[in-house]
Amino acid sequence: MDTQHGNHGEVKEVGKRKVSMSEVGLRFLAFSLTLVAAVLVGVDKQTKIVAVSTLPPLNVPLTAKFHHFSAFVYFVVVNAIACAYAIISLVLTLASKGGNKGGLALMITTLDLVMLALLSSASGATGGVGLIGIRGNSHVEWKKVCNVFDKFCHQMLAGLVLSVVGSAIFLLLLVISARKLQKTHY
Amino acid sequence: MDTQHGNHGEVKEVGKRKVSMSEVGLRFLAFSLTLVAAVLVGVDKQTKIVAVSTLPPLNVPLTAKFHHFSAFVYFVVVNAIACAYAIISLVLTLASKGGNKGGLALMITTLDLVMLALLSSASGATGGVGLIGIRGNSHVEWKKVCNVFDKFCHQMLAGLVLSVVGSAIFLLLLVISARKLQKTHY
Repeated sequence: MDTQHGNHGEVKEVGKRKVSMSEVGLRFLAFSLTLVAAVLVGVDKQTKIVAVSTLPPLNVPLTAKFHHFSAFVYFVVVNAIACAYAIISLVLTLASKGGNKGGLALMITTLDLVMLALLSSASGATGGVGLIGIRGNSHVEWKKVCNVFDKFCHQMLAGLVLSVVGSAIFLLLLVISARKLQKTHY
Repeated sequence: MDTQHGNHGEVKEVGKRKVSMSEVGLRFLAFSLTLVAAVLVGVDKQTKIVAVSTLPPLNVPLTAKFHHFSAFVYFVVVNAIACAYAIISLVLTLASKGGNKGGLALMITTLDLVMLALLSSASGATGGVGLIGIRGNSHVEWKKVCNVFDKFCHQMLAGLVLSVVGSAIFLLLLVISARKLQKTHY
């Protein structure tokens, strides 16, 4: 009987550690993704010689930078916050040895939710403005710019994709946490 | 002793019913907010006589509609989905008499999370594009349009605020649910 109990204990312990390690892995992934997304967009810059339609036509060097658009600045700030939070929450998870207790667990869940909302809104803002950059909008005569600043737009798109995956990781972390709690509850 | 037990049972029951009713109230609020947000933006339209700088100058009627912008179309679709989901989840919550069991509870939590992410991204997209409508962007020569289509922009802003509050309600529902589960767990 004693041996059986011991075995059961071991299996449970291994199971617990496994869940905790997957959480640590996911938080590290969220950290990496949002870090690279923030850097990619934060250093995004392209200069091109553009022909300006004056008389006579002039060739002028024009530069596209991320901080020319409020949406892209918001994107960098939010991804930097999410990146910092991901590493802090990872450390807290490790420090509490996988078993987050009461107040700490609720705080982490709440902040995970806030990160999900912030990252989603930043991706939405960047996607919405980026789409106008790619296609333009004839109704308000906003010309597309991605035909000129192609490298700038591609780098922005790469950052956007990473950030969307980052927010999906936070969603996954929240689903895993809810599943774990509801399994115990019912 | 029996009376004491009975009293305890009653208090618990009242407590349970209270939490359930606050969830029902919040889901109805989310339904109303996203419904009004979708309608406000969906019917948003304004026609103005605008002087076009031709030679001689021409006065032309121009119309601003929500579906001229992909971000606003996305906003209406997402708010309509969230509105439909809010009423369905309300009915499911009532049908399960407040005590959502296992699979249903996890499904509702997961869909609440998806709604939070979708609503946040839609608000982000609308906010990002709306801000360019208000301020314009001199770097890419996108002119502001809200000085002309003032009523259109105000109605859009009202829809945006309601949608943001709607997503905050989903966030609150998720925090309440996590708090309830973690109280039982620890």
